[in-house]
Amino acid sequence: MIYVVFMEPETPGNIGFLARTMKNFGLDHLVLINPCQLEHEAYYQSMHAREIIYNRQEYNSLPEFMEKEGIDFIVGTTGTAGGSYNIPRIAITPENLAESLNIQGDIALIFGREGDGLTNHELELCDLVVSIPTHESYPILNITHAAAIIFYELFKIQKDYPVEDLDEASLDEKEGLIEYVDEVLGKLDYPPHKKKNATIVFKRMLGRAFISGREAHTLKGMFRRIRDRLD
Amino acid sequence: MIYVVFMEPETPGNIGFLARTMKNFGLDHLVLINPCQLEHEAYYQSMHAREIIYNRQEYNSLPEFMEKEGIDFIVGTTGTAGGSYNIPRIAITPENLAESLNIQGDIALIFGREGDGLTNHELELCDLVVSIPTHESYPILNITHAAAIIFYELFKIQKDYPVEDLDEASLDEKEGLIEYVDEVLGKLDYPPHKKKNATIVFKRMLGRAFISGREAHTLKGMFRRIRDRLD
Repeated sequence: MIYVVFMEPETPGNIGFLARTMKNFGLDHLVLINPCQLEHEAYYQSMHAREIIYNRQEYNSLPEFMEKEGIDFIVGTTGTAGGSYNIPRIAITPENLAESLNIQGDIALIFGREGDGLTNHELELCDLVVSIPTHESYPILNITHAAAIIFYELFKIQKDYPVEDLDEASLDEKEGLIEYVDEVLGKLDYPPHKKKNATIVFKRMLGRAFISGREAHTLKGMFRRIRDRLD
Repeated sequence: MIYVVFMEPETPGNIGFLARTMKNFGLDHLVLINPCQLEHEAYYQSMHAREIIYNRQEYNSLPEFMEKEGIDFIVGTTGTAGGSYNIPRIAITPENLAESLNIQGDIALIFGREGDGLTNHELELCDLVVSIPTHESYPILNITHAAAIIFYELFKIQKDYPVEDLDEASLDEKEGLIEYVDEVLGKLDYPPHKKKNATIVFKRMLGRAFISGREAHTLKGMFRRIRDRLD
């Protein structure tokens, strides 16, 4: 299942536009994090997708939502994809997302904030980050137009690709692996910021690679052995 | 040159959203056919694309525009693509449009009307008609979201866009990383077949993860440190 998560919306009309584009592309789970009052405008702009707004969930914070809903995989979005030196903002295209996303688990697609986007800290929580290729003269899309393009790419690919039943690694399996990696990194003489970057890179790589349970197991074995040898 | 033509707009905000998404994807010629008063809202929603609205052209009718500007090729858009029996509404996808459009001549991309779309008669004037694949439960997109998706597909095919240009790791960089991983694996007490599996898993993961050169560098640093500590 895909949850569409709108971080701290401030403009009721944008909540409506988002709900409408969700329904246009067959999505229906809307989550609002610490939203403004919805007002008439949200319902008005959603047009024939009002039920998505009626059925929305609200949470006070992103971590609260993730914990309560048991999310397996988090996709962040940014209009300011970093150059290659801003690791939390290294992004893939919506097309690559659609090609690689396995929609078996519970996935959160995070949009927002309207003014400032997601913080680096929030992006670090994400398994991968998506950014839409744009013209350099004005790279920042309106948030609901960006969402429409990402939903469109995800929808478009469903028509041609048979769903593959790949035993994707669970959140627990991936977290267990990351713990081993962290333990190993802790035993190397890393300056703290480099250690943090290495963890993020490893996590992102896992996120983008959609590894199976079997692969997670093999990688865990590898890092367990490394840890044991370093001790 | 591509002219973006908005038929009889009634909502100033939509003119603004359209101008913004045009600039996001490198388009700048806006034509309004028999528009409403623009009001502050049009400029407000265009954000940093106000100059597109200032520089717009206005005409009373589509034929008047086509004659005055000497348009070579007209692309209509519709949310209600007919089955194969409604000939004016037989449509191609935005993706097919992007693949087949030759942007040498003067092309008009026609959007609108907000409520009713283009008439059959107007669609008959078009050289081709585009429609966006959508979920059957709600096929009608907001007009500026539809425009954003079509502009995105036209832009995407031009290839030189920043996100994908993002310095994907070269084959050399990835192979260099795999060599370090192999060296590390060689220093662990792996049974040979397990060692081979671990190499394959790591390589596959890299292959699927679209890592950047910067990320390959970070991971190489990590495995170099592990190797040095194991020695």
